[in-house]
Amino acid sequence: MEELSLWTVFGSEVLGTGILLLLGVGVVANVVLPKTNGNGSGWIVIIFGWGLAVFAGVFAAASSGAHINPAITVGLWVSGADEYAPGVPITIASTLVYFAGQLLGAFLGAVVAYLAYYGHYNDPEAAGTQLGTFATGPALGTIKDNVVTEVVGTFVLVYIVLRFGDTPTEIGPLAVALLVVGIGASLGGPTGYAINPARDLGPRLAHAVLPIRGKTGSNWGYAWVPIVGPLIGAVLAGALAHVNL
Amino acid sequence: MEELSLWTVFGSEVLGTGILLLLGVGVVANVVLPKTNGNGSGWIVIIFGWGLAVFAGVFAAASSGAHINPAITVGLWVSGADEYAPGVPITIASTLVYFAGQLLGAFLGAVVAYLAYYGHYNDPEAAGTQLGTFATGPALGTIKDNVVTEVVGTFVLVYIVLRFGDTPTEIGPLAVALLVVGIGASLGGPTGYAINPARDLGPRLAHAVLPIRGKTGSNWGYAWVPIVGPLIGAVLAGALAHVNL
Amino acid sequence: MEELSLWTVFGSEVLGTGILLLLGVGVVANVVLPKTNGNGSGWIVIIFGWGLAVFAGVFAAASSGAHINPAITVGLWVSGADEYAPGVPITIASTLVYFAGQLLGAFLGAVVAYLAYYGHYNDPEAAGTQLGTFATGPALGTIKDNVVTEVVGTFVLVYIVLRFGDTPTEIGPLAVALLVVGIGASLGGPTGYAINPARDLGPRLAHAVLPIRGKTGSNWGYAWVPIVGPLIGAVLAGALAHVNL
Amino acid sequence: MEELSLWTVFGSEVLGTGILLLLGVGVVANVVLPKTNGNGSGWIVIIFGWGLAVFAGVFAAASSGAHINPAITVGLWVSGADEYAPGVPITIASTLVYFAGQLLGAFLGAVVAYLAYYGHYNDPEAAGTQLGTFATGPALGTIKDNVVTEVVGTFVLVYIVLRFGDTPTEIGPLAVALLVVGIGASLGGPTGYAINPARDLGPRLAHAVLPIRGKTGSNWGYAWVPIVGPLIGAVLAGALAHVNL
Repeated sequence: MEELSLWTVFGSEVLGTGILLLLGVGVVANVVLPKTNGNGSGWIVIIFGWGLAVFAGVFAAASSGAHINPAITVGLWVSGADEYAPGVPITIASTLVYFAGQLLGAFLGAVVAYLAYYGHYNDPEAAGTQLGTFATGPALGTIKDNVVTEVVGTFVLVYIVLRFGDTPTEIGPLAVALLVVGIGASLGGPTGYAINPARDLGPRLAHAVLPIRGKTGSNWGYAWVPIVGPLIGAVLAGALAHVNL
Repeated sequence: MEELSLWTVFGSEVLGTGILLLLGVGVVANVVLPKTNGNGSGWIVIIFGWGLAVFAGVFAAASSGAHINPAITVGLWVSGADEYAPGVPITIASTLVYFAGQLLGAFLGAVVAYLAYYGHYNDPEAAGTQLGTFATGPALGTIKDNVVTEVVGTFVLVYIVLRFGDTPTEIGPLAVALLVVGIGASLGGPTGYAINPARDLGPRLAHAVLPIRGKTGSNWGYAWVPIVGPLIGAVLAGALAHVNL
Repeated sequence: MEELSLWTVFGSEVLGTGILLLLGVGVVANVVLPKTNGNGSGWIVIIFGWGLAVFAGVFAAASSGAHINPAITVGLWVSGADEYAPGVPITIASTLVYFAGQLLGAFLGAVVAYLAYYGHYNDPEAAGTQLGTFATGPALGTIKDNVVTEVVGTFVLVYIVLRFGDTPTEIGPLAVALLVVGIGASLGGPTGYAINPARDLGPRLAHAVLPIRGKTGSNWGYAWVPIVGPLIGAVLAGALAHVNL
Repeated sequence: MEELSLWTVFGSEVLGTGILLLLGVGVVANVVLPKTNGNGSGWIVIIFGWGLAVFAGVFAAASSGAHINPAITVGLWVSGADEYAPGVPITIASTLVYFAGQLLGAFLGAVVAYLAYYGHYNDPEAAGTQLGTFATGPALGTIKDNVVTEVVGTFVLVYIVLRFGDTPTEIGPLAVALLVVGIGASLGGPTGYAINPARDLGPRLAHAVLPIRGKTGSNWGYAWVPIVGPLIGAVLAGALAHVNL
């Protein structure tokens, strides 16, 4: 297979992660901001919204293997995969290109979600609620507890994605979408399931720079948790993939 | 491949868009009109109802490639596709036939939905709520904001549909159905996600002419937004499809 | 293909329609009866419960082509199909065998659902609510309106099932399950979407004969509507299938 | 086919049942414990959470045929299947290995779910509600009624899984996931649908030994019901599979 240009990888991950965050930030905005059609429609809408955000993002990033999450990139690396995608060797350079594309895409996707909900983000009644639509935060518990929750959730995501090839199924991107719906249902309760460092950091940066009326601070003190937890989970998943089950 | 008669294209799009709007108007009627079984069942029912309306409509319009949305027709045209469907060349005439079938189907589907919910539409307690079951409207915000929201939602729909071929999946019409569920969850909050000019204009015309007891006006002042926004989104999606990602 | 015994057809339809009604009556019992885990969980649970009841029933009745609904049998007949299932010719005898299996299965499935919810059906607080878990009934409107609603819902079901072959998809029984979820979301509001004469008559008979504590009458005055409406819808769908779209 | 080591079978079932219970206990914790993001989100989240827990568990346990439920193992045995999975003969030893792996996995999965929700399990406001997140219990009714409910639910699960091969579908693990969603919707009302002896016993043991603040007793008096009921249902399903329908 011909090698893929790293510019193509970069563009593909920007686009896919962008659509992931556009739809992901969008669904939380729809449920949380006070005057939308979906206001108050609850956790079932949140988890299907994020799952189908992954579904759409995977199609958009098909040529780069649709990582759209640094934890997937790290999990593949640790697992000893042959390549990141057809024609994309695993090198330090390609890894950094994935990370950069994912972070930029996540930032841009959040900005577009802000534009799509512009009137609602700047509604005076929304003051103070906007950060929750961009970034994750803990419902309760100590920092250590929250790291554990993110490790567990990301471990399930990355390990099962690495195992997809073992069981024949022809549903393609729907498999990872449903997996994310399930992780949200089951493990999203304590921390809002970042399970993806770019998913949290990109929109948090967007929240920090966008001129949102009545916004709070961006809670940078918590920002390392949804980066470190998912990376640990990804390393564990990649390592377990070496065990022949 | 033998060329398909434009009458077949027309009939196919009338039927598919008709079933789309029958089920789409129906689900909003079920959730909004005061005495139905589904009254008050919320946004999750709305988004699955519309997604599965697309699912059914795609099977009904299979022979014409199941556009059932002028934005898909425009997106294919701008993207430089070879044909609209097997045996249907892209010409001004065929484009107009798609548009005409979609608009007529949307109108007729809304009329049949009205008949299926006849007692509920003419229930005195429903007075003033019926327009929302036919046509979209903004929850908030300026006209410009609402155009942007429709541009973004339609861009995601058309761009991902144009990318379906890049990632193998065997779920067929379910893919577009789930994409529409996801767009509804994530981007339906501000404007009710027309993302399809026929979806809004056809039922709005039906609302204007049907003898619904206690109906309000048909809000024609807003009617251009769910036409222009989706067409801009479709052009952008078709243009981006030229970029090789 | 070797011809299938009509006894096999009968047994297959009994089993498949039995599982359909076990799960279908069950989900309404879960949502409606006052002390279940699913009490008050709403229309979204109802429509997924019935859709997945079809999903399970189709696997159980695979050898007879999984009609599990007289409307499907009638629709195939009117459409001019070659056979009812591989090895089952379309004759008056085979048609009656399908009908008999479907009705008996629906009756038995409702009886087993009653046993699975035995304590809840005989809970004094459930008095008067049980009929709604067995049979459909109108929320509002004249009898004529309700017939129209059942005609429209069944038309969509049967016509789209007859069109499944036109669009390649590999999701198998999931396609009809999702179609039924969609019809429930969109057209279940006025009459509770029987869209299947056996689905209503079998459980209504079970309600009439079972010793349910505090039950009301079985509303036989309405019982012909969910028989006649679906049969008209099925004939229309079978007839439209002759039009080459 | 080369025979699979029983150690591999054991490890595969531990991992798959572990992920099943991690996500299954997790979703109930999310809905029931008072300060989670999903608190109060209802039965629809519960049933999709458990269904998708099966989905993930099946991928993890692919090499052992993904029983992850002693009822499936028993059903295959009674049905006269050729082997438990490719390369795994049906013997007393292999049967016990499946059971042991399933029970250990269920215990460990519940422990990890406890860690993922650590702060929420030890929240003083959660006192007394934790048992319901680990083990099933009856909403109402006599013990005999509850056994019947578990027999019926497990029968549907095991019989339809045994019939999957009869109807072509390419959705793979999604089929059993959706079946479990449907059984939860329809038959989960009275007893919380254990339909799997390991699913109940493993987490009940975890509840008994974990130092959960303010926990109640583990209700061992009921613990035999979700073991005996599912095993009876599995035997009936395996026996019916001998009937050629």
